[in-house]
Amino acid sequence: MSRCRELALTQPIKKIVVAYSGGLDTSVIITWLRETYGCEVIAFTADIGQGEELEPLREKAVKTGASRIYIDDLREEFVRDFVFPLLRANAVYEGRYLLGTSIARPLIAKRQIEIAEKEGADAVCHGATGKGNDQVRFELTYFALKPGIRIVAPWREWSMKGREELIDYADKHRIPVTATKSKPFSTDRNLLHISYEGGVLEDPWASPRRTCTPSPSRSSRRRTRPNTSRSTTRPGTRWPSMGSGSPPRRSLRGEPHCRRPWRGPRGPRGEPLRGHEVPRRVRDAGRHAAPRRSPRRRILTMDREVMHLRDSLIPQYAELVYYGYWFSPERLMLQAAIDESQRNVTGTARLKLYKGNCDTVGRRSPVSLYRPDLATFEADTVYDQKDAEGFIRLNALRLRVGAKTGR
Amino acid sequence: MSRCRELALTQPIKKIVVAYSGGLDTSVIITWLRETYGCEVIAFTADIGQGEELEPLREKAVKTGASRIYIDDLREEFVRDFVFPLLRANAVYEGRYLLGTSIARPLIAKRQIEIAEKEGADAVCHGATGKGNDQVRFELTYFALKPGIRIVAPWREWSMKGREELIDYADKHRIPVTATKSKPFSTDRNLLHISYEGGVLEDPWASPRRTCTPSPSRSSRRRTRPNTSRSTTRPGTRWPSMGSGSPPRRSLRGEPHCRRPWRGPRGPRGEPLRGHEVPRRVRDAGRHAAPRRSPRRRILTMDREVMHLRDSLIPQYAELVYYGYWFSPERLMLQAAIDESQRNVTGTARLKLYKGNCDTVGRRSPVSLYRPDLATFEADTVYDQKDAEGFIRLNALRLRVGAKTGR
Amino acid sequence: MSRCRELALTQPIKKIVVAYSGGLDTSVIITWLRETYGCEVIAFTADIGQGEELEPLREKAVKTGASRIYIDDLREEFVRDFVFPLLRANAVYEGRYLLGTSIARPLIAKRQIEIAEKEGADAVCHGATGKGNDQVRFELTYFALKPGIRIVAPWREWSMKGREELIDYADKHRIPVTATKSKPFSTDRNLLHISYEGGVLEDPWASPRRTCTPSPSRSSRRRTRPNTSRSTTRPGTRWPSMGSGSPPRRSLRGEPHCRRPWRGPRGPRGEPLRGHEVPRRVRDAGRHAAPRRSPRRRILTMDREVMHLRDSLIPQYAELVYYGYWFSPERLMLQAAIDESQRNVTGTARLKLYKGNCDTVGRRSPVSLYRPDLATFEADTVYDQKDAEGFIRLNALRLRVGAKTGR
Amino acid sequence: MSRCRELALTQPIKKIVVAYSGGLDTSVIITWLRETYGCEVIAFTADIGQGEELEPLREKAVKTGASRIYIDDLREEFVRDFVFPLLRANAVYEGRYLLGTSIARPLIAKRQIEIAEKEGADAVCHGATGKGNDQVRFELTYFALKPGIRIVAPWREWSMKGREELIDYADKHRIPVTATKSKPFSTDRNLLHISYEGGVLEDPWASPRRTCTPSPSRSSRRRTRPNTSRSTTRPGTRWPSMGSGSPPRRSLRGEPHCRRPWRGPRGPRGEPLRGHEVPRRVRDAGRHAAPRRSPRRRILTMDREVMHLRDSLIPQYAELVYYGYWFSPERLMLQAAIDESQRNVTGTARLKLYKGNCDTVGRRSPVSLYRPDLATFEADTVYDQKDAEGFIRLNALRLRVGAKTGR
Repeated sequence: MSRCRELALTQPIKKIVVAYSGGLDTSVIITWLRETYGCEVIAFTADIGQGEELEPLREKAVKTGASRIYIDDLREEFVRDFVFPLLRANAVYEGRYLLGTSIARPLIAKRQIEIAEKEGADAVCHGATGKGNDQVRFELTYFALKPGIRIVAPWREWSMKGREELIDYADKHRIPVTATKSKPFSTDRNLLHISYEGGVLEDPWASPRRTCTPSPSRSSRRRTRPNTSRSTTRPGTRWPSMGSGSPPRRSLRGEPHCRRPWRGPRGPRGEPLRGHEVPRRVRDAGRHAAPRRSPRRRILTMDREVMHLRDSLIPQYAELVYYGYWFSPERLMLQAAIDESQRNVTGTARLKLYKGNCDTVGRRSPVSLYRPDLATFEADTVYDQKDAEGFIRLNALRLRVGAKTGR
Repeated sequence: MSRCRELALTQPIKKIVVAYSGGLDTSVIITWLRETYGCEVIAFTADIGQGEELEPLREKAVKTGASRIYIDDLREEFVRDFVFPLLRANAVYEGRYLLGTSIARPLIAKRQIEIAEKEGADAVCHGATGKGNDQVRFELTYFALKPGIRIVAPWREWSMKGREELIDYADKHRIPVTATKSKPFSTDRNLLHISYEGGVLEDPWASPRRTCTPSPSRSSRRRTRPNTSRSTTRPGTRWPSMGSGSPPRRSLRGEPHCRRPWRGPRGPRGEPLRGHEVPRRVRDAGRHAAPRRSPRRRILTMDREVMHLRDSLIPQYAELVYYGYWFSPERLMLQAAIDESQRNVTGTARLKLYKGNCDTVGRRSPVSLYRPDLATFEADTVYDQKDAEGFIRLNALRLRVGAKTGR
Repeated sequence: MSRCRELALTQPIKKIVVAYSGGLDTSVIITWLRETYGCEVIAFTADIGQGEELEPLREKAVKTGASRIYIDDLREEFVRDFVFPLLRANAVYEGRYLLGTSIARPLIAKRQIEIAEKEGADAVCHGATGKGNDQVRFELTYFALKPGIRIVAPWREWSMKGREELIDYADKHRIPVTATKSKPFSTDRNLLHISYEGGVLEDPWASPRRTCTPSPSRSSRRRTRPNTSRSTTRPGTRWPSMGSGSPPRRSLRGEPHCRRPWRGPRGPRGEPLRGHEVPRRVRDAGRHAAPRRSPRRRILTMDREVMHLRDSLIPQYAELVYYGYWFSPERLMLQAAIDESQRNVTGTARLKLYKGNCDTVGRRSPVSLYRPDLATFEADTVYDQKDAEGFIRLNALRLRVGAKTGR
Repeated sequence: MSRCRELALTQPIKKIVVAYSGGLDTSVIITWLRETYGCEVIAFTADIGQGEELEPLREKAVKTGASRIYIDDLREEFVRDFVFPLLRANAVYEGRYLLGTSIARPLIAKRQIEIAEKEGADAVCHGATGKGNDQVRFELTYFALKPGIRIVAPWREWSMKGREELIDYADKHRIPVTATKSKPFSTDRNLLHISYEGGVLEDPWASPRRTCTPSPSRSSRRRTRPNTSRSTTRPGTRWPSMGSGSPPRRSLRGEPHCRRPWRGPRGPRGEPLRGHEVPRRVRDAGRHAAPRRSPRRRILTMDREVMHLRDSLIPQYAELVYYGYWFSPERLMLQAAIDESQRNVTGTARLKLYKGNCDTVGRRSPVSLYRPDLATFEADTVYDQKDAEGFIRLNALRLRVGAKTGR
């Protein structure tokens, strides 16, 4: 170890802010931090719509050794500044993973830094393991927002290897946890999604249904190991065969993220909705076993070339979000292009939800590029079938010359 | 009109090869060609798995005025040289349209040119309208393979505007057609897909179910107008609610398109399949209302960076296919990269089909990049959680420096 | 010809605005328009820094038959709204062509439409030939800004084929032109560049020096034919061997196009410059035979990932500009990303100009990402050589696993 | 440090292969390896055209403590398997850096692994510092070719910080080195390039001329620090003002890297050349002060769309090479596309070299896409100016519809 790093590490920590969930890991972490660094520990829990009772954490954190706890309602900020920009990009990682966990970490880390500054804390801490991407998402955000911050990642420091050792540690230190030594998989849940990972879900040949989950809503899996699929579901989804048999139609309106004069998202009857109510409304559709992955396309209002260009940027944008680079200049650069591409995206879609299917059965928009009146207008002056011949002949020119050179 | 074009157009056509389906349009075209150009007409029909009885066309074409007809079974060539390369690319146009029509046109046009050369014909003809992309697909292929060929596109030449006028023309010329003046939409069908377009399907606010199709299999729509969605189904699909209630599991094996020692595609019991049997087997799943659009991902065997690179090329590749540039040097260039990316794609997938859902419930491969033995091997020597700290710190370096400059 | 097009074309034109240069082509066009369409002709000449005396055109246009002429100084608008956005993109077409002509056409066409609206004209006209890209640049702009406008492109309508026929026409109609029947090549010049095309320059095996130009400034060539090189020079450049022997150093300052608190471009002594003075200052360097193509890179202030992303967008952006899509939603989308990428680009560069060379011999910036104080800061806390090991090991992980699977 | 890593590190090394240059660093490394690990050290020096006398290294390596030394002539392999593929890609990192060092490291590392396997060595070692990209290039190659190999990177292990401490160490251990404690910069040279880095070259505001190099060939600089420019020259170049005054013309022929029937590269008189002679021939041009960065474009034979696609892949390809991912599946995937794009690149170019300028003054090719006979052919049948109208109208369609919707 280099001398300068050693010096940095041996400088004592005075106060640390830890991302706290109230579960086994972060409960152990609070005690471990006090024991290892002898520092004051501030706990912080973000409400991003995980739908759990958070108030009890107040007492629990203090019992575990935290000097105080922040429980902040970040639902509106989450939807407005993180989820909507992500939806504008239509970003899906590797064509499958909806980035529900990836998009939440930067917000949690950002708020942690804000609390650290307010509290005069000199370090921050998270409970992500040393194997996955969550540690990267937390720490890149910490560094981007406060380049001199000191970071403690207990899973990379302590010698404990798994759940059993943590429970032993909790027993020994009288940390109040309610955990059993075997747990089939872990979950992550927020307004946007719920994901499952670990245990039998790591075996790609094992059926998720048969092996892991008696509960109808625990069905999908998320893996952080390289080259394996990650998938998530929206909270409250069910197996298709458990969906209600009667297919409802559902109309969603409004322009949650376009730049035109802002009227905001709307419910089926045109009533205005706050940003974070939108995912909840969609979630209610879960009782019909709406699909775990939903279509995000609306192409009535996007110019073809703009859509193609946007689509060509998705893999890179999704990669940035997945890898933890939300607060990077390149994400902002892509976001500028994407936001511009969505300038005119607004309108109403009718969806049909039925046993795992979500079909768009109707779409319309005041700025639709597909309108009967334009069709008529085209017939007369805009489009002439004769034009196609010149178009084809000019586009074929280089193919013909190429063929003539005997290639 | 320039003098040279005039000259070219006034040069008589002696023999012409027309892409013939036996329907109203191409029946009228045969007569119109003879009447307009006074030339010999050769009809050509490709069997690419449309599942219709083609033999009766032999007599019908001759009755309509063709001097002879070619009916060629191109199913194996279609699957081997067109469908499989397309599947290797995982190409989907605008994230929705599976390119089932787009991929068939270049093959039909290629065979047409071959017949023209064999027959000593001096022109080719197709029945695509002057408004859509099919005319481009036919004609770019003609020009790429035979740059000096003369092309006749009747819909851009004659003054007839629609179905009714064609039926009048057929009546007048005693062309044997069985058509009614109103038809809700037209269809295109081959081994890979079936698509519907036209009529009420042009209205994006109208539900496909309610408005257009009493028959269970006529459900989706394809539009060729700008800025509207195009979608297709696989032949034989049904509405989800009409799917069989009992979810079967189905195992597909083999490596239809990887470069490893070729053992070819396999059925559920390991029996070898010919290329064009694969789509049929999949189609049989239709009675369970398998989804109209199927997942094509298999990520156990693709390197992450290779997959991301391949994905970034999909929009451009799909655009080339959709726009008719199959026989272009840039498609070949992309194909070279894509084929290289699929070098190791092989294995077995278990799919569950149920009322419109197709879930992958198990995957395995002899060259999987996700293997338990490697996981163990990693734990000891390949992966050390400590490595993550250096990885994060180096990746954060530029973000920290950027933050330090006060940006 | 379809009926509707015929109708449109036979509708009389009442007043037309023509892009007028005072040269042979556009002089003939004014007369030809009056003769062919019997309409009033408004001439329009844009001053975009071509450095020619434009006042005499006033009399000449009227003598040739125009009812009036607009001569508008568009230099500042040209630099501010067209050249600077282009430079922010660092756009170079096919890695060679600096887009000097391409970027001027949309502005000329835009102003033409504005004049047409002010004058109540029902058509616009340009003098570009039917073979190149300039016709596309003019007409896409016309259509994008006024979709119902009627366009007359004389070179695609009349039967005249070349320079000689135009001179005959001018003689016959007593149009006052000073032109000889042979001309080695044509030129296009504005604030940003000068280009040459045509004649012997079309032969890629002929040396530009030996064959075409006795004048020191006529040296490069621009071709519009497919698959040939296009190149341009900045106005006032010389052959390297004719450059002054004494290499001057030249310091350019300021931030012509960054978004930071605007202080504008500066001269060598810090004096403020108007936008359109910048190219003139650079041009003065021509007497030292500064290179015909200049480096546009400044990398002290751009984040690496931002620069790489920007670079990956250049080919597409340059293609859009070259093909005439300046006023398209996809150019605006790319521009949004590019402008964001240049947010911090500011500083001073010292250039050395000598016989065709332009070397950057010094660069500095107040927001440089490369600073000695950060270097020190890094040594202690930001960068630890030990971090590199973890970085390498994590990045190597997938390569090692891939090798283990025997690929 | 985790237990498993500790175990691995404490396992003794028996035999190690070190990349050896004979300079101060690698001489110290041989002794330090023997002292630290007590292992047998094999030295390996690659001849990749650095133009230095390598035979004396034989004695020197043994005196320094190596048990034997391999001096391998890799010039032909270097040019054939590394340089030519790189040139086919026209790869330039960040538009400036010609990748001369980056492309050599993977070959050296590959040969090192081959020697390790032949010698039964259990580790490899390089002399790159812990701050730059060279360590990554070496180690990613080691891992890709032999995933279980053990790597020693002395600069990341020992406590020595710079040149002075190394000289002290050499003095103490009687290592025969001829080095002075101050050295203005270091160099790296091979068949393809020479680069300079370090010392005053790290200051972007200091002129390279004034500050660092009295010798005509030491002129450029290469930096490995983030966000600074890296640039290299071809070996043997001079300052422009020191170039010979008489501009020679120089004709280069042949198809060094196309796939057509291979006739190989040719000299000016048509004589065949071995691959590695090509760079030397070009280098001889250095006495005319040929430009430090040369044009690599040849566009007579590349289809436009192929070239644009190739260009869009360059940034990513160059990044892969620069970052050390030569032996990665994604580089192979890109290479497949690039090689396909160069299938028809062949011909002759006449270059004019003069005081830092390299101008292409003539080009021709047997498969040129720009030929007079085709031009004539076009005039008659391929190209009709009338076609342009349809082409423009169809391309304008979406712009007009967009404008109509009031966007």
